[in-house]
Amino acid sequence: MKKLQEIGEFAFIERIQGFFPSFQSNVLVGIGDDCAVVEGREGHPLLLTCDSQVEGVHFLSSLTPPRRVGRRLVAVNLSDIAAMGGRPVHALLSCVWRGDVEDEWALEFVKGVQEESRRYAVNMVGGNLSQTSHSMVFDLTVVGEIDGSPRLLRRYAVPGHVVMVTGTLGDAAAGLAVLKRWGQEGKERYPRLVERYWSPVPRLEVGQILASVEREFALIDISDGFSQDLGHILDQSGVGVEIDLAALPLSVELKNFCQENGCDPLSFALEGGEDYELIFTAPEEDSYWLCHRIEEKTGVHVQVVGRVTSEHVRKVQQGRKKRKFLPAGWRHFAGGEKKGEWK
Amino acid sequence: MKKLQEIGEFAFIERIQGFFPSFQSNVLVGIGDDCAVVEGREGHPLLLTCDSQVEGVHFLSSLTPPRRVGRRLVAVNLSDIAAMGGRPVHALLSCVWRGDVEDEWALEFVKGVQEESRRYAVNMVGGNLSQTSHSMVFDLTVVGEIDGSPRLLRRYAVPGHVVMVTGTLGDAAAGLAVLKRWGQEGKERYPRLVERYWSPVPRLEVGQILASVEREFALIDISDGFSQDLGHILDQSGVGVEIDLAALPLSVELKNFCQENGCDPLSFALEGGEDYELIFTAPEEDSYWLCHRIEEKTGVHVQVVGRVTSEHVRKVQQGRKKRKFLPAGWRHFAGGEKKGEWK
Repeated sequence: MKKLQEIGEFAFIERIQGFFPSFQSNVLVGIGDDCAVVEGREGHPLLLTCDSQVEGVHFLSSLTPPRRVGRRLVAVNLSDIAAMGGRPVHALLSCVWRGDVEDEWALEFVKGVQEESRRYAVNMVGGNLSQTSHSMVFDLTVVGEIDGSPRLLRRYAVPGHVVMVTGTLGDAAAGLAVLKRWGQEGKERYPRLVERYWSPVPRLEVGQILASVEREFALIDISDGFSQDLGHILDQSGVGVEIDLAALPLSVELKNFCQENGCDPLSFALEGGEDYELIFTAPEEDSYWLCHRIEEKTGVHVQVVGRVTSEHVRKVQQGRKKRKFLPAGWRHFAGGEKKGEWK
Repeated sequence: MKKLQEIGEFAFIERIQGFFPSFQSNVLVGIGDDCAVVEGREGHPLLLTCDSQVEGVHFLSSLTPPRRVGRRLVAVNLSDIAAMGGRPVHALLSCVWRGDVEDEWALEFVKGVQEESRRYAVNMVGGNLSQTSHSMVFDLTVVGEIDGSPRLLRRYAVPGHVVMVTGTLGDAAAGLAVLKRWGQEGKERYPRLVERYWSPVPRLEVGQILASVEREFALIDISDGFSQDLGHILDQSGVGVEIDLAALPLSVELKNFCQENGCDPLSFALEGGEDYELIFTAPEEDSYWLCHRIEEKTGVHVQVVGRVTSEHVRKVQQGRKKRKFLPAGWRHFAGGEKKGEWK
């Protein structure tokens, strides 16, 4: 008999995935993408997704104010809706509180949930409260909608297409490192990094623009880290990739932080999680106008960072050198963060 | 500043309910009933509900085998669908595991979820796995459907109507008492009581029969205890009730258990939770054929146990005596089970 932490998150998911075939023909996309897609209103399939914030794992009460924990819970779920090109519509909130939590903390948390759901006009239609004597767990389920059939799935990467990414990478992980080192005072030193960790912005508009193109693109959001989440696209599409390290979008703040504290910005960018940016692939000839349209409509910068290959190998290019890499990032039941192994 | 356990579950819910108005007209029933009801396929509104099982609160690993924990998680959620007269269609499973839980335990739990969702043809379309170092938390969201508009709401109780209840009351709470006293060996002594606690049966068919009548009835399922859950109907309808204690349906097993161990079956029936039977109200003239139709089609006994009154007072009748009572049952953040107070 093994313990779950010896088996690892993804191996366990693989093992139980086959347990759950669909009983009805109204499931368009089941387990394995950012959201499930099921039959909804005529021409508007429903998106279903859930994600949790666990005290001591996703947040520490000492490092993240309760209002930010609430906002974060909503934002990370909306990011999954963004990764399907959808619109969020309804949500259910399940809270498992420690009985000894102060009402002030609990109310601030709920206000954070309120703020973020109002920002995106999401109806909080129900939920559940329970108690625990240990770590608090907050779970949100979001129901969204898309127009027409689902076209932005992890399995749609095609050799020759380019890999693009929104915003900048590694900021949230650096923000967490700042908080761990200096506590909440770290916000004075590196405000933008901490802000990026505390309040991720779901790229809903970007996803919706990609969905409106009415073509099949591979798309995923970055929760566990660029290299690991890109890995899901590659695995499900049966393809490889070459990433140009020099092209990875790094913020000025991340570079300053790394210079001042002697660390490697690429490690944060490749393996740091919780950026909630989008990775997507598209034909090279479409990349220019896609980037342009997204930047023009949303103000979000999009960067081409590599190319999908038919060889099932992941390589990074640094200057003239190419090296293989393994996907790395956050894994539950694996001792937490794992650094990438360079071969 | 107060702690959440000093405020209590229902007071806290009341306090935050107003935080979440709906932003869109497609919410038919929001926070406050067994499920939310939102616009769905033409003529088929969607039901949305979630409920959790928390280790140490809803189950103890030493008293309930993992497969029963999994089955229970599904059943208690389907009971909320039953209480709206709906059909369950899809579900999302969110698991927060202790990293040191054995794979055998985890797999047995997932098999329980599989068994129970297959039994009711529910598609498990997605979910989420996280880790914790403390109590495990399992959360299920179920999406269901009804035909036509929602007619089985807590607020539809009308003075003069009779109060009916399915099955027998108090068995599950007695089953838990058996397990607490004798451990899992208790199953040999009182198999039916333990079975009722381990594997509640969602009364989906009963709910669907009531929905098919196309009239407005008040309906709720019993999760926290008969008197407390009935209280939600009374509060939301602004009515009172008179319950005939002699009419409360008690199983032979519960009576035997109480006789052999010197306890009061009425206390289990009124305040013991987790029976997952249905309480509903209907005009007296419909009660006979409704009971008959339900029993004929489902084999579930239905009992008239009292009458809705216009006075906002809750009374029980025992022989010729009438007394007031306060709703009591399980409350989170209130030191657990509270016995009813008799005035």
